[in-house]
Amino acid sequence: MQTIDHVHLSEDGTKLVILDQTQLPNRMEYRELETAEDMFEAIKKLRVRGAPCLGVFAGFAMFVLAQRSRQASYESFSEEFHQNARYLNSSRPTAVNLGWALRRMVRVVEAHAGETPAALLPPLRAEAQAILDEDIAMCLAISEHGLSLLREGDCVLTHCNAGPIATSRYGTAIGPLILGAERGVKLKAFADETRPLLQGARLTSWELDRAGVDVTLICDNMASTVMKNGWVQFCFVGCDRVAENGDVANKIGTSGVAILAKHYGIPFYVLGPTSTVDLDCPTGDDIRIELREPDEIREMWYREPMAPASVKCYNPSFDVTDNSLISGIITEKGICRAPYTESLKKLFE
Amino acid sequence: MQTIDHVHLSEDGTKLVILDQTQLPNRMEYRELETAEDMFEAIKKLRVRGAPCLGVFAGFAMFVLAQRSRQASYESFSEEFHQNARYLNSSRPTAVNLGWALRRMVRVVEAHAGETPAALLPPLRAEAQAILDEDIAMCLAISEHGLSLLREGDCVLTHCNAGPIATSRYGTAIGPLILGAERGVKLKAFADETRPLLQGARLTSWELDRAGVDVTLICDNMASTVMKNGWVQFCFVGCDRVAENGDVANKIGTSGVAILAKHYGIPFYVLGPTSTVDLDCPTGDDIRIELREPDEIREMWYREPMAPASVKCYNPSFDVTDNSLISGIITEKGICRAPYTESLKKLFE
Repeated sequence: MQTIDHVHLSEDGTKLVILDQTQLPNRMEYRELETAEDMFEAIKKLRVRGAPCLGVFAGFAMFVLAQRSRQASYESFSEEFHQNARYLNSSRPTAVNLGWALRRMVRVVEAHAGETPAALLPPLRAEAQAILDEDIAMCLAISEHGLSLLREGDCVLTHCNAGPIATSRYGTAIGPLILGAERGVKLKAFADETRPLLQGARLTSWELDRAGVDVTLICDNMASTVMKNGWVQFCFVGCDRVAENGDVANKIGTSGVAILAKHYGIPFYVLGPTSTVDLDCPTGDDIRIELREPDEIREMWYREPMAPASVKCYNPSFDVTDNSLISGIITEKGICRAPYTESLKKLFE
Repeated sequence: MQTIDHVHLSEDGTKLVILDQTQLPNRMEYRELETAEDMFEAIKKLRVRGAPCLGVFAGFAMFVLAQRSRQASYESFSEEFHQNARYLNSSRPTAVNLGWALRRMVRVVEAHAGETPAALLPPLRAEAQAILDEDIAMCLAISEHGLSLLREGDCVLTHCNAGPIATSRYGTAIGPLILGAERGVKLKAFADETRPLLQGARLTSWELDRAGVDVTLICDNMASTVMKNGWVQFCFVGCDRVAENGDVANKIGTSGVAILAKHYGIPFYVLGPTSTVDLDCPTGDDIRIELREPDEIREMWYREPMAPASVKCYNPSFDVTDNSLISGIITEKGICRAPYTESLKKLFE
């Protein structure tokens, strides 16, 4: 497959280069990020997004900030490093991978207590590269497990974007479709456009189309009809955080897809790395859901406002899908089934 | 309440004047329609829309075309009249009220066989006015029946637009909310934005806000979350065609709302006039669903395309909600309950 180098270091390693996902599918525009503020903004504005990709981004971001640091002592360097990690972590509260990758980078600094900032750079770079390499291997493993469920001609409905640019290489939720296309297995897909930010229209349909998968774009509210028509054999979605009991936080609208799938008897699978599983979070009720700006609904993409300025908007970024609605959670280590309190715990044994 | 005169005759009766709903909520722009082509275009482009409103529109449209006719004999006038009716009826296949109102106007012509075209104008005008007057009375009755289900503080989720400008005066689905506001009953509402054409954002939220109802706009895929939060006591939607068995065709996404409501144990009501009930249509499978242009999903409202041009789009305008998901069908004659094959038939006895 054609890989998209969407998060990488500049040649001299002093800048983080990202494909600006807000410009897709119309332009492949790269941006160079130098400061913590640039990086915070890139996450907040969704120029970089997708839970696993945010982990990869966080690793390289912390390396770039370390390399640009002017601190001379371990103590001041470490203090600045921790501060940058906390700052980046505050940009999006729901995705677990961001904090997970930041903690990995922080642990490298802590493991080298007392060394000079210069001596810390090689192990920090190695850790960031390891996060990326592990993500590529993880995506391939998840894609293999997901593909094992599919037969030639099957059609998968997906919501939001958990493809190559949300991760590394194959992606998670649509990884099985892209891996299948690479192997000549004929599969079909429906992509929910995923309001308000249209990641399904702008990213997923673009990625699947590019990979040669037979994809049809629908508005979110059309999922019920395509399921009723008998056109969908599986639902595959990504995840931003999986609670200990198997409740899953993912893009707003995911729980609705799961309820429709249950109604029509269609298996609903969640695909994501074990790094997304948060055993410290007992249930979905304990997951904090990010609320975003009303104008994303009211006007962000439009030539002119599409609702009166006086009208209130409720704009949660994620929702929680109850574990009872989930047929399986597909990780790089295999497919977990209910009861999830047991099967998820085994992932970490 | 402030009424909106959204479909009316010009002073001399030779033109049909409509509020162009595609310009809302940013501009209240009126258009004058003279020819059958103007009228067809206004329906097709959704400048005028909403099943009951299309009935009112059809009555006055046929009167205007009759008045502008140059035919001198009953035979040629009648032929032209039938032809215009067939032409307008082909503009939107799913809504039953359009055809129903056109047939009422055609019957007036048939009842006056042999008379001069000039003699036909007064009874045609009277029939068009009767359709409007009946619609106003119908909306009020439906609103009363719907309001009887609500208590102070209740919150109603609605999909698409079945408000004053989709009907006459109060509307159907949101009629109870508007009537309640008029009587000082404090009610709340969630309006689904209703992709692709955003009638919920552009029209429903505008109408409810204008009527003083506490309304919050959400994207369609957020309905599951607001229901799960316990914020919704009822779902009220309109209808474009009700089959003999109670299956309901309404704006795409309605069946999804019904499935979510069932999952969360929230009563789901369909509100519409008996003219929307089609006893000649046995089930929802017999309702023809209009497919619309892919570009409505891909680019219609945007500064630039939001999906690759090469990506297929599936764009059904309506879906069918199974009667098993419906708590009741509220008409001007009262609330029908399951089994609908019996309760709907009684409406016509």
